[in-house]
Amino acid sequence: MRHMTPTRLAEDAASFLPVAFRLADAARAEARRYFRTAVPVDVKPDQSPVTLADREAEAAMRRILEAELPAHGIFGEEHGRVREAADWQWVLDPIDGTRSFITGRPTFGSLVGLCFRGQPVLGVIDAGGTGERWWGITGGQSCFDGRPIRTRACADPALARLAATSPTMFGPDDRARFDRLAGRVTDVLWGGDCYNYGLLALGLIDLVAEVDLKPYDWCALVPVIEGAGGVVTDWSGGPLGLDGDGRVLAAGDPLAHRIALEMLALA
Amino acid sequence: MRHMTPTRLAEDAASFLPVAFRLADAARAEARRYFRTAVPVDVKPDQSPVTLADREAEAAMRRILEAELPAHGIFGEEHGRVREAADWQWVLDPIDGTRSFITGRPTFGSLVGLCFRGQPVLGVIDAGGTGERWWGITGGQSCFDGRPIRTRACADPALARLAATSPTMFGPDDRARFDRLAGRVTDVLWGGDCYNYGLLALGLIDLVAEVDLKPYDWCALVPVIEGAGGVVTDWSGGPLGLDGDGRVLAAGDPLAHRIALEMLALA
Repeated sequence: MRHMTPTRLAEDAASFLPVAFRLADAARAEARRYFRTAVPVDVKPDQSPVTLADREAEAAMRRILEAELPAHGIFGEEHGRVREAADWQWVLDPIDGTRSFITGRPTFGSLVGLCFRGQPVLGVIDAGGTGERWWGITGGQSCFDGRPIRTRACADPALARLAATSPTMFGPDDRARFDRLAGRVTDVLWGGDCYNYGLLALGLIDLVAEVDLKPYDWCALVPVIEGAGGVVTDWSGGPLGLDGDGRVLAAGDPLAHRIALEMLALA
Repeated sequence: MRHMTPTRLAEDAASFLPVAFRLADAARAEARRYFRTAVPVDVKPDQSPVTLADREAEAAMRRILEAELPAHGIFGEEHGRVREAADWQWVLDPIDGTRSFITGRPTFGSLVGLCFRGQPVLGVIDAGGTGERWWGITGGQSCFDGRPIRTRACADPALARLAATSPTMFGPDDRARFDRLAGRVTDVLWGGDCYNYGLLALGLIDLVAEVDLKPYDWCALVPVIEGAGGVVTDWSGGPLGLDGDGRVLAAGDPLAHRIALEMLALA
C-alpha cells in the first residue's frame, strides 16, 4: 500500500462508511442519554467544558474501533491518540458544541472523521439532538439523511451569509481580519458549532470563518463540504492539516472562498 | 370589566389557551412549508430580513383572530396593529429568529402573546423546526410539551450560563454593560433568539440579556418564564412595557436576576 490512486482511495474510504455510521450511532446514543439532564460539567485545562456524555460517547466509539479495526489509529478529543503511525486515523469529536449540548440546544453534533496519511477521506456529522446526519467521502457526492446535497452558488460576498460560533474565539488580530469579512456580507450568524458547516453543505449558509479549531473539530467536515461542492482551507488557502494553526475558512462557492481569503489576509 | 382579580384574570387568560395553540399551529404550518426552501429574503427598513413565510404565518394567525375574537386587538411584527384601545391584545411574532430560519437552523420560533391592559398574561413559544412548544399563563405553572417546567437555582452568577443572540445587537454603551456581566459568568452562548428563553425556562440557561427587542419579541416570553419560576424585566428591573426601551434581562433564579441587574447598571 505504498501508493494509492484516488479511485482506490475513494473505494477504500467508502468501505469504512458502515463502521463510521455505527460509531455515529454509538455517540448519538450516549449523547441523547445525557441531553437535557443535569449532567455535571467539568472544565478542561483550556477552559472548555466537558461532561460524562463527551467521555462516554468517545469511549463507546473507541470500543468499536478497537474490536473491529485494531490496526487503525485513533485521535479523539477526550481520550487522546493511539497508533499515531498508522496510515488510517479515526479523528473523533464525541460532542462538538459541548456548550450547546449542556444548555439544551439540539444542534450539537458528533463528528467522525477518517484520514489516510493525513488527508481527510471520510466524514460524518451526526446531529443527535435533531436526528439529522450528513456524510461525505473523498471524490464522492455528499449526502444529508440519505439524499444528495449541494452548496449554493454565491460568488458575491455582499450576498453571503457568514457564520461563526462565538466572537470570543478570536484574538484581536484575528477579530480584525474576521470583521473585515463580516463587514462585507449580508448577514452574520452566531453560535452553531459544527451544525453551521452542515448548513453550508446544504446551501443555506455561504461562509464559515473560525479559529482555534482542533483536528477533531474539522476533520469530519472536510469530505462533507468538498463532496457538496464547497471548499474548506486554512485562512491562507492551504489544506487543513494535523499540524495546522486552527484557522478554518469554509465556503459553499469556490469564488466566494477566493474573495473571502483576500479579506481575511493579513493587512 | 373595570377591575379584574388576579384569579379571574388567570381564568380568563387560560380560556384563550386553545385559540393561542391554534394560532401557533397555523404559524408552524406556514413556517415549515418554507423552511429550508430558497424562499426570497427581503430587507426591512431596520435592515432585518423578512420572507413570505413571516408574512403568511402572521396572516394565517390574524385570520383566525378576526374570525373568532373580532373585538380583540392585534399587534403583529409584519402587519401592524389594529384596535389598539382593546383590553385584550394579541402580540404576534410569526417567525422570531428570521436569520436562523433562512439559514436552516431549526431553533427559530413563532411567538404568540396575549396582553390584558398592557400586562402579558399568556404566552406560547412554538419551535416549529423541532416540534417543541412552551406555554405559560399568568399565575400558573408553565409547561413544555405538556409537562410542567422549572428554572434552575443558580444564585451565583459565577456559575451562570448567559446567552444573547448577537454581539452586534448592542451599541457601545450597552456592550460595555453586557460585557461586565459576561465577564462574571461561567459561559456565554451566542445565537439562539427566543429559543434561549425557552431553555432558561427549562433550567438549562440561567441568564439572557438582550437589547433592541420589540413587544412581539418578548411578550410571549414573560408568562412562560414567570410561570417556570424565573424573572424577566428591563435592565432597570422594571416590568417590560409596550413603551419600554427594548432592553430585556431574564433570569432563572430571582437572586441571580438582582445581581445581574447590578452588573448591567449604568456605570
